[in-house]
Amino acid sequence: MDVLDRLTEKYGKYVEDNLIKYLSIDLSAEFKDAVIYQIATGGKRLRPLLTLATAEAISGDFKRALPAAAIVELIHNYSLIYDDIIDRGDLRRGKPTTRKAFGDYAAILIGIWYREAIEEAVLDTPRPLEFAREVAKVIKAIDEGERLDILFEMAGRDDPYFISARWKNVSLDDYIRMVSLKTGVLIAASAKFGAMSATEDKSLWDSAWNFGMNAGIAFQIVDDVLDIFGDPAKFGKEIGKDIKEHKRGNIAVLLGLQELDEGSRSELLGILSKPSVTDADARRGVELLARTNAKERALQLADRYRERALRELARLPSSRDLEDLAAFIVQRQF
Amino acid sequence: MDVLDRLTEKYGKYVEDNLIKYLSIDLSAEFKDAVIYQIATGGKRLRPLLTLATAEAISGDFKRALPAAAIVELIHNYSLIYDDIIDRGDLRRGKPTTRKAFGDYAAILIGIWYREAIEEAVLDTPRPLEFAREVAKVIKAIDEGERLDILFEMAGRDDPYFISARWKNVSLDDYIRMVSLKTGVLIAASAKFGAMSATEDKSLWDSAWNFGMNAGIAFQIVDDVLDIFGDPAKFGKEIGKDIKEHKRGNIAVLLGLQELDEGSRSELLGILSKPSVTDADARRGVELLARTNAKERALQLADRYRERALRELARLPSSRDLEDLAAFIVQRQF
Repeated sequence: MDVLDRLTEKYGKYVEDNLIKYLSIDLSAEFKDAVIYQIATGGKRLRPLLTLATAEAISGDFKRALPAAAIVELIHNYSLIYDDIIDRGDLRRGKPTTRKAFGDYAAILIGIWYREAIEEAVLDTPRPLEFAREVAKVIKAIDEGERLDILFEMAGRDDPYFISARWKNVSLDDYIRMVSLKTGVLIAASAKFGAMSATEDKSLWDSAWNFGMNAGIAFQIVDDVLDIFGDPAKFGKEIGKDIKEHKRGNIAVLLGLQELDEGSRSELLGILSKPSVTDADARRGVELLARTNAKERALQLADRYRERALRELARLPSSRDLEDLAAFIVQRQF
Repeated sequence: MDVLDRLTEKYGKYVEDNLIKYLSIDLSAEFKDAVIYQIATGGKRLRPLLTLATAEAISGDFKRALPAAAIVELIHNYSLIYDDIIDRGDLRRGKPTTRKAFGDYAAILIGIWYREAIEEAVLDTPRPLEFAREVAKVIKAIDEGERLDILFEMAGRDDPYFISARWKNVSLDDYIRMVSLKTGVLIAASAKFGAMSATEDKSLWDSAWNFGMNAGIAFQIVDDVLDIFGDPAKFGKEIGKDIKEHKRGNIAVLLGLQELDEGSRSELLGILSKPSVTDADARRGVELLARTNAKERALQLADRYRERALRELARLPSSRDLEDLAAFIVQRQF
C-alpha cells in the first residue's frame, strides 16, 4: 500500500469531515451543493495529510491539528477556484471545475465563502492569532505567485494589467521566487501548521517550514519538467501545456532558452508569443528544448532542493509516515 | 458644513492613511497602483466615519478604532471589486471600476489581496479574536446577500447556478432578509466595531449593531425607491436601473407587483424577464409602478426602520457627530 493510501486510511475521514464542517458554518441549504462541490471533486489531500503526519511525528497527537489540516486544504481549493476562473479551466481531476459547473460569477461567490471557512478553522486552532497571521501571509504569497506566473507568460491575456505589467525577462532567481510563492509556501505551511498545532518549540516550526518549502520547490521543478518531457500516458496531462499557455515561467523553458542558438531561441520565443499556440507549435517547442540540457539541469536543480528538504526533515522527530510522505513529494519519479 | 464634510475634516486623513497602511503590508511595488486604485477612486467613507464617531461617542477616543474603521471600508471595497466583476460594471463614482481598469482576472487577484489586508487590520484591533469572528460572519452575510440579490433577478444571467437556483417568488420577508445581509450587516458592523474598539460593555455593542442594521435597511429601501422614482438630475443615476437589471428584489417593484391588476402585473413581469430590457421598457415599468401605492408604502416601511434605528441610537452615549451621521443615513431626502 503506498503512503497516500495508508495515510488516507488513517486520517482521511477526519480530513473530509472537517472540510465539510468548516464550509457548512452559516451556509444556506440552497448554496450547499455549489459550495461543497469544489472539495467533493477530490484530490490527493496531500497537504492536510502532511499537516497531520507532521503533528503526529512531533507530539503523537494528530487530532489537535485537524483545524490546521482543514485550513491548508481549504486554502488550496480557494486558490484553485480562482485559478480555474483566471485560466478558463474547464476540467480538473477529470471533472468540470467549479466555474464550469456553476459559472464564473457564481464561482466568485463560492471563492469568497472558502476564505471565510478558512477563518472559521483558524479560530478553532490551538493558537488562533498566530494562525491568523500566518494564513494571511500564505494567501498573499499564493496571490503574488499567481500574479508572477501570469506576468511571466508571453501572450494570451486580455487584462490591461497583465499586458502592461508583463515581464520582459525572467531569470532563474525570478523563477525560484515565483514557484516558492505559488507552490512552496503552501507545502511549507502544511508542515509548519502541523508543528504549530503540536509544539511550542519554534525551531521545529521553522524546520517544518523549511522542509516543506524546499520539497515544494523540488516538486514544482519536476512538475515543470514533466509538463515538457513527460510521458503523456504516464503523466496523464497533455505534453507542452505550459508552452500552449505561453509560459516562460516553466523551468525547462527558462533553462532551454539560455542554451539555444539565436535562431532556435527566436523560434521558441515566437511560439510562446503566438496568441494561439497549436499542438504542432507545442511539439516543435518540446523538440527545440530536447536539443538542450534543460531537462538534466532542471532535474539537478530539483535534486538540490530535495536534499535541502531532507536535511530539514531530519531535524524533526522521525516517523515512518512523515518520511514516506516526504519521499513521495520530493522523489516523484520522472 | 454638512456632517460628512465635518467628519472627513476630523477623521479623513487617519482613515486614508490606515487604508493604505493595511493594503501595503507585503505588497509588491509593481502591484501597488493596481491594488490601491479601488480605494483611490474615493467614496464617502460613510462606514469608517460611523465607526470612529461611534467609538468617540462611547469612549472619547477614536484612535483605538482606526483598525476597525479600516476593516469596514476594506470590506466595502472588497465586495465592490467582486460586485463590479459579477455585474460587469464599468463605472463607479464616475471612474472606471477596478475590473474595467485592470481586467476581470487581475481584479480577482486584487480582491484576494483586499481580504488579507482586512486580516492585517483585524490583527491590529484591541480584541483581534472577536473581530476575526465578527469579520468572517459579516463577509459571509454580504456574500449571501449578493447571492440572494442575484437569485431574485428574473433574467440576464448565464451562470448555470444562478439560472437553476433562481427564486420563483420573493416575499417582503425575503426582501428584508436580502437587504439586511447586502446592506444592513456592514452598516451594523461599522457601528458595532466602533463600540467594540471603545468599550467592554456588550450591551453597547448590541445597541450599535441594532442601530446600524435598522438604519442600513431604511437606507436601502430609500435607495430602491430612488432608483425607480427618483429625480435623475438630483439622484445622479439612471432611473429604473433595477428594472433594466431584472430585479424583483427592489422594494418598489416588489410592493408594486402586489397591487397591479393581472394584466399590468404580467406586463411588468414580462419586462423584468426580457433578456435585454430597453430604456423604453424601463420607463414603462416605472409608469406601471407609479399607478400603485408602492412608493408611499415603501417610504412608510423605511420610516419604521428609521424609528427603530433612532430608538437604538438613543441607548448609546449621545454625541452631535453620531446623531448628525445617523440623521444623514436614515433621513436621506427623497
